[in-house]
Amino acid sequence: MKAIGIFDSGIGGLTVFSQVEKLLPSENLIYLGDTARVPYGTKSKETIERFAQEDTQFLLQKNVKFMIAACNTVSALALPFLKKEMNIPIMGVIEPAVQKAIFLSQNSRIGVIGTRATIESKAYDMAFAQLDPSVQVFSQACPLLVPLVEEGWLNEPEAFSITQKYFEPLIEKKIDTLILGCTHYPLLSAIIQKAIGEKVTLIDSAKATAEVCLKTLDERNLLNKNQQGQHQFFVTDDTEGFRKKGEKFLKRPMSHVERADLEQP
Amino acid sequence: MKAIGIFDSGIGGLTVFSQVEKLLPSENLIYLGDTARVPYGTKSKETIERFAQEDTQFLLQKNVKFMIAACNTVSALALPFLKKEMNIPIMGVIEPAVQKAIFLSQNSRIGVIGTRATIESKAYDMAFAQLDPSVQVFSQACPLLVPLVEEGWLNEPEAFSITQKYFEPLIEKKIDTLILGCTHYPLLSAIIQKAIGEKVTLIDSAKATAEVCLKTLDERNLLNKNQQGQHQFFVTDDTEGFRKKGEKFLKRPMSHVERADLEQP
Repeated sequence: MKAIGIFDSGIGGLTVFSQVEKLLPSENLIYLGDTARVPYGTKSKETIERFAQEDTQFLLQKNVKFMIAACNTVSALALPFLKKEMNIPIMGVIEPAVQKAIFLSQNSRIGVIGTRATIESKAYDMAFAQLDPSVQVFSQACPLLVPLVEEGWLNEPEAFSITQKYFEPLIEKKIDTLILGCTHYPLLSAIIQKAIGEKVTLIDSAKATAEVCLKTLDERNLLNKNQQGQHQFFVTDDTEGFRKKGEKFLKRPMSHVERADLEQP
Repeated sequence: MKAIGIFDSGIGGLTVFSQVEKLLPSENLIYLGDTARVPYGTKSKETIERFAQEDTQFLLQKNVKFMIAACNTVSALALPFLKKEMNIPIMGVIEPAVQKAIFLSQNSRIGVIGTRATIESKAYDMAFAQLDPSVQVFSQACPLLVPLVEEGWLNEPEAFSITQKYFEPLIEKKIDTLILGCTHYPLLSAIIQKAIGEKVTLIDSAKATAEVCLKTLDERNLLNKNQQGQHQFFVTDDTEGFRKKGEKFLKRPMSHVERADLEQP
């Protein structure tokens, strides 16, 4: 039975994995985290395309039927390139979040937060322009939020103060919906909600992505049913460190974390 | 004329480059920053050794006479491994800072701050144990300081508040000397000095390293004199982004940034 391949620059894509696992319990899932070269978000388009190509090559060798780039940076910068290269369907995390935000926003003033690479790519602006040009999009790069999550400072006053500082321009613009444009951000959602205000709707791209994944597989008759899906995890750096951190992301024990070697052709 | 090779996981090693350039203006210098895979500080020993080996191989092909691992993570985790592999001398940034701290401390209570990998490696503790076992060493991992420097938040109240939080245990221990055990930290020295207290002596490992480099080359009759040194810069990611950021580190215009390809053997 062919699997769904999910890849990310590191561990953050597990938020997507977790939502896909919930919605599609019968599917075999293979996760790849490029933990040796994480993060992608601070690097050039050319380098991100090369890394993403190596990630997808690895998953294609595992015989997957469908691929998710569970990484905002890859979705923003390398998805058109990957679509051209591959003969199986691949989706990113940007379009699902944009569709959901358009559906839920009342005043058509929508905020997007992400890494510097994601925001500077203008990928969200382009997706909105294509799907609903009437929406006004306000973007804010928040490069310190991923390090805060990695450090485990999810409720510290410093985390709140940094988030507040980043959100000042968004609050001025009176957005009513905010896309969490980075897979790490759902872990900070309590602080983010408090800093942006209780009335703003947060869009978790992980959840939106899993919903579109289910719909797409169903439309293409690629769904598996009536069995328990198997899960495999691959990383390019130390497996044990990933397993320990990963259990916090998935909120359950993990097994089968294996080493992947992408750089040796 | 053979050059001195200086390498780092990214841009931070330019603080070492800058000090070497000042002390040894007649030397040819070749810098390598592995910006496509930065940072090293959050990765495993095995991966750091592999990356460091690829870095040194690249510089050896450029015919260098002496090598500086201008990266605390590499100095902490991969230096013994690199020394075994190479037939030219190589130095790290840890021993020079430790020697200088021992020389300057009055109460033999010395603090060390660095990335999580550097602190957890216990490399500073081991260097102190070897050079002066009477010193009491107090270490503190400060993983958020590098992202703060990368974000350019060098004087923000949030940077001060985070630094203060990290330093609480060090202040309790009444240290009189603090080693900045990461090449990025000299850029935050104003805030660090304020947070740790004006009476504590800060040790900039970049400066200490350049001083030992000069002494070692002199002892081994490897010094060049009477000419203007040439400088070359290589990076594994985008050259233009490095040049722009690098000018802030060096406080002067840079030229000759070239692309290095380490991963294709």
